Order: sequence, then C-alpha cells, then structure tokens
Amino acid sequence: MNQEHAQQLKAAIEAVKSREIGNIYFVACGGSMATLTPAQYILDREIDIPSAVYSSNEFILRSPKALNDKSVVISCSHSGNTPETVEATEFARSKGALTISLSHLVDSPLWNAAEYRLHYDWGTEARAEENNYGILYRLIFGILNTLYPNEKYARAVASVETSLHDVFERNKANTLEAAKAFGSDYKREPIIYTMASGINYSLAYSFAICLLQEMQWIHSSAIHAGEYFHGPFEVTDYDVPFIIIKGIGETRLMDDRAHDFCQKFSDKIVLIDAETFDMEGISAEVRNYFANLVAGVVLRQYAQYLSEFRGHPLSVRRYMWKMDY
Amino acid sequence: MNQEHAQQLKAAIEAVKSREIGNIYFVACGGSMATLTPAQYILDREIDIPSAVYSSNEFILRSPKALNDKSVVISCSHSGNTPETVEATEFARSKGALTISLSHLVDSPLWNAAEYRLHYDWGTEARAEENNYGILYRLIFGILNTLYPNEKYARAVASVETSLHDVFERNKANTLEAAKAFGSDYKREPIIYTMASGINYSLAYSFAICLLQEMQWIHSSAIHAGEYFHGPFEVTDYDVPFIIIKGIGETRLMDDRAHDFCQKFSDKIVLIDAETFDMEGISAEVRNYFANLVAGVVLRQYAQYLSEFRGHPLSVRRYMWKMDY
Repeated sequence: MNQEHAQQLKAAIEAVKSREIGNIYFVACGGSMATLTPAQYILDREIDIPSAVYSSNEFILRSPKALNDKSVVISCSHSGNTPETVEATEFARSKGALTISLSHLVDSPLWNAAEYRLHYDWGTEARAEENNYGILYRLIFGILNTLYPNEKYARAVASVETSLHDVFERNKANTLEAAKAFGSDYKREPIIYTMASGINYSLAYSFAICLLQEMQWIHSSAIHAGEYFHGPFEVTDYDVPFIIIKGIGETRLMDDRAHDFCQKFSDKIVLIDAETFDMEGISAEVRNYFANLVAGVVLRQYAQYLSEFRGHPLSVRRYMWKMDY
Repeated sequence: MNQEHAQQLKAAIEAVKSREIGNIYFVACGGSMATLTPAQYILDREIDIPSAVYSSNEFILRSPKALNDKSVVISCSHSGNTPETVEATEFARSKGALTISLSHLVDSPLWNAAEYRLHYDWGTEARAEENNYGILYRLIFGILNTLYPNEKYARAVASVETSLHDVFERNKANTLEAAKAFGSDYKREPIIYTMASGINYSLAYSFAICLLQEMQWIHSSAIHAGEYFHGPFEVTDYDVPFIIIKGIGETRLMDDRAHDFCQKFSDKIVLIDAETFDMEGISAEVRNYFANLVAGVVLRQYAQYLSEFRGHPLSVRRYMWKMDY
C-alpha cells in the first residue's frame, strides 16, 4: 500500500466526518465524470443524503442553489489541468463547500484548487487499489464506514485493497480471445451503440464518448437500458451493433429486458455479462458495486483490439490537445 | 382557462405547501422524462431543496435511500399507461412520498396511482397553457410562489397563462421556411447529432431519442455542449450533421463554445438560436426558462418536414405498440 495515498484518504474522510453534510456533488468532465458517477450510485443506495453528478461547466453556470457550506464537492481531472474542473472546484470552495479532488498529477492547478487532494497512480504498472477507481472506492466506502460504521463497508474497502487488482488481471485474461474477436468482427462498423443501466450506465457513457467517439472516431450513443423502450429501440435492426453491459445487481432486470428484445432484431450484439466474471476476493454483498469496474477493464481491452484491427491507435486525436478550443 | 385544471393545480400546490420537503424527484420515461427535466433545472437554480430526475425503472430498482415521507415525487405519462411510471408512482407513495402525476388520460392507471392528478390537454387544438409543459410550468412556478412568494414567480405563471400559446404560434410561423429547408437538406442523413446544455439539454435528448431514433429511425445521440470537448468532438467532420440548440440564459456560454468549434469543421450545422425567438409576452426575467419550450415547438416543426421529405410519417413504428416487450 502507498502510505501517502492512505494518509491523503484518511485526511479527506476525517474532514467529511467533521462537518454537517447536506448534500454531495460529483463534478468532472467526460471520462473523469464517468469515473466518479458509480460513487453517486453507491451513495444513492446506501445513505439518505442527496447526491448528484454534474459536468464541470454545467455545475458552474447552473450554480445550484443547494451548493453551500454543508456541501461536499468531489472533483476529478486526470491531468489536473482541465480548466472547467479547476474552476468548478474553486467555485465550490468559494461557496464554502468541502472540496476533495482526485488527480494523477500532484501540484497541478486542480491539486492547488482543492482543500483535500487525492493522488492516484496511472499506467500499465499501476496497481488497481492505487489507481483512479481504487482511490475513489476507498474514499467512498471509507466515508460510509466513518459516517455509518458497518462491516459491509469495511469489507468493501478491504476488497479494493487486497483483491481488486487480481480480479482485474484474471478477467482480462479470461476475455482476451473475446476482445480479439470483437476487434476483428466490428472493425468496419460506422456506428456502435452501448447500453447499460444502474451503476453500469456511466461505463456505457464513457465507452461511447471516450473510446468510440474520441479515440476511434466511431459514431456512438450510450442508451439507458430502461429508456431503450421509450424511443431508441426503434433504430434496432439486424445490422445495428449494440454493446450491452449486464450488471449483477438490483438493476439487472432492466438489462435483461433490453437484451432479450434487442437480440430478437439485431444480429450484432456484444454482450458483457457481469455474471460471467470471476469476482473471487470481492466481498459478496458489494459485488454489484464492483462489476462495473471489472466490465470497464474488460471493455478497455475490447477497445484496444478494435483499435489494432482498425489500424487507428487509441492515442490518435485530430482536435484534442492539437489546437485551442 | 380550464377551471378543472386550475383546481387540480391548486390542490397539488397546497399539498406541497402543507408538508416539510426534503427533496424532490421527477420520474418518467423517454419523452415524458424529458418533459419534466426543465422543471428540475428551474428548481436547481431557484431553491436549495435538492431535486433529481430518474427514468422510472431506474428509480424503482435503484431505490434511492433519500426517498421518504419528506419527498415529493412528480411523475408523468402521456397515456397514463406506462407500466414503469405507474409502478414508480405506487412505489413512491408506498414510501410515504407526496405524489403528483401529469397525464393526458383521466382514470388511467397512473391517474389512479397518484395522490394528486393533473390532467393536460393534447392535440392540434390544445392551447399551450393547458398542455403538458403549460401545466408543468404552472405547477412548478406555483409551488415556488407558494413556498417563496416572489413577483417573479407570479409573472412566470402569468406568462404561461396569457402569452405562451401566442409565442409558440408566432415562432412556428417565423421558422416555417427554415423547417422546410431542413427537411429537404437533411432527408438523406443516416445520423444526426443534437447538442445543447442547461435547461435545453433535455430537448436535445428528446429530439434524439423520440423524433430521430423512434419516429424517423435515424441514428442520433444527444451531446451535452460542455461534454462535447471531452470526447464527442473528435467525431466532428465536414459531413457530420449537428443540430445545435443555443439558449439565452446562464449556460449559453457552453453553447457558444461548442457552436464556435463545431462550425469550423462541420458543414452541416443546424442552429436553433433562442436569441432569434420572438419572446414578447414572456416576463423578461424568466425567458431563460421558456426558450427551451419555444425551441421544442420549432424543432417539432423541423421534424414534421423531415418526415414529409422522407416519406416516413412521424406516427410509424415497427416495434412500439406492435408487440410485447
């Protein structure tokens, strides 16, 4: 365990404990917003303090009236340089909110904007318990266990610290061949929809906007599995591809229903089913909160092989970082 | 004015006033969810009681812990028959929440599930102040004016009651030629993105999932104008169409930024700019909360002409109402 990370987490969790909390906001952009969103889902299920997710500029310009000195604002930017997220964190702090920021870069503008700073590791060598999701989950379950002490939360933290990394590695290995087949089979698709619900929805969103649109220039849209039947399902046809992520928790009913319908009319369904994951080591009572993380690692490998079969590296951009915008 | 509607609104507003309110949920599916969403935006800006929007099944299965007898749950189903929304309303009521439902059909299952029922008119003859948005806005500004009496809110209600219908008609007439040109120019597009932010975002969402995907079988995705720069903008190219809705309020900065960038690289931008609307009769201080409604009427006419030039009526479905799902 990285002792610096542990100390940063301890300080942030104690700060939350020391305050009266009226509401909690998660604020970030794009992939970082999607990273934070599962934590909002967990809080929604576990505690009666309202919480919400905002894209950074929407948060600043909308300026929710409930943002005040009883708010906790958790923000995230990988580089720590995303101007909207830095500004949103400064804005929240100016309103008296307790600010906690996650970033890979120490001493970045975001790092200096937030009252409590959480560094996370990144890259192929980084261990899961020290990367963005690992730090976020240790923070959220740490806050829960401090505010409402419960063995369940302690076991969730322990699951991250002792088992998550190996779970990721085993499931990556188990889905390697499926990832290669996906890359080969779907390399010529001009549009690929993603679909999920509950805690997995933000993964469908980030796969659509970051992996497909941003990194592969493939048209996409994340469809909520419950919303599918209220409009989007009419585009379903034999040649329209859908990546469907099925969770293992309380919202799986929606995923099952969407999958059952979709497979009747589309011949191009890519199913990521959390029930097939090897979750050994993750405490059984919180596995529904972890399957989305495993699905994310599995899908990242799918994207990697899609990019290889398309000869379009995931690192290529035409606008991002290339010009002012 | 329809006296029955006025009485139903009065009863619902008084019920809200009589309770201690901890939070407010808006719950519906698809187009009805998008209809309710602007009200959440208005509450976010105007009061410090947290509020949130959920798709009905997500609401039931997620079962937010903050849903209790201090909650107000506002739901909507046009037919009053949407099973998920009926169940969500019953679920909310079972948790002790105050339930208010909007529906076009009296004595529908939703009508019977909710404690307070608001009927709205529908069809080509319906007046704006009595249709879905008219009733919703009279409810929301009525609640605001009862909880926090303010001339601004009274003028907002008066704007709906006296002027909204004519504003809709005038702006429809003003954009008729533009709607026809859109239908002709975009009739062969296989994918059309929509983009907006703030109070207009839910209109981008409903236009994407209801008008384009459901009613025209055209691929689409609603992009949040702030999120555009964090992934989606990489799909922008000279031949990729975007319908961009620009509001007149506090979030217009995001719309301007997205439009400025998008028009550099796409030759197919359809701009719906609320600054060009004739808003005479709507109280100046709340026009930012009404421009989305006008944009919706304008865009509905765009969809009408798109359907005519494509020979694909807006009423055609292949799955909806045709089978069990």
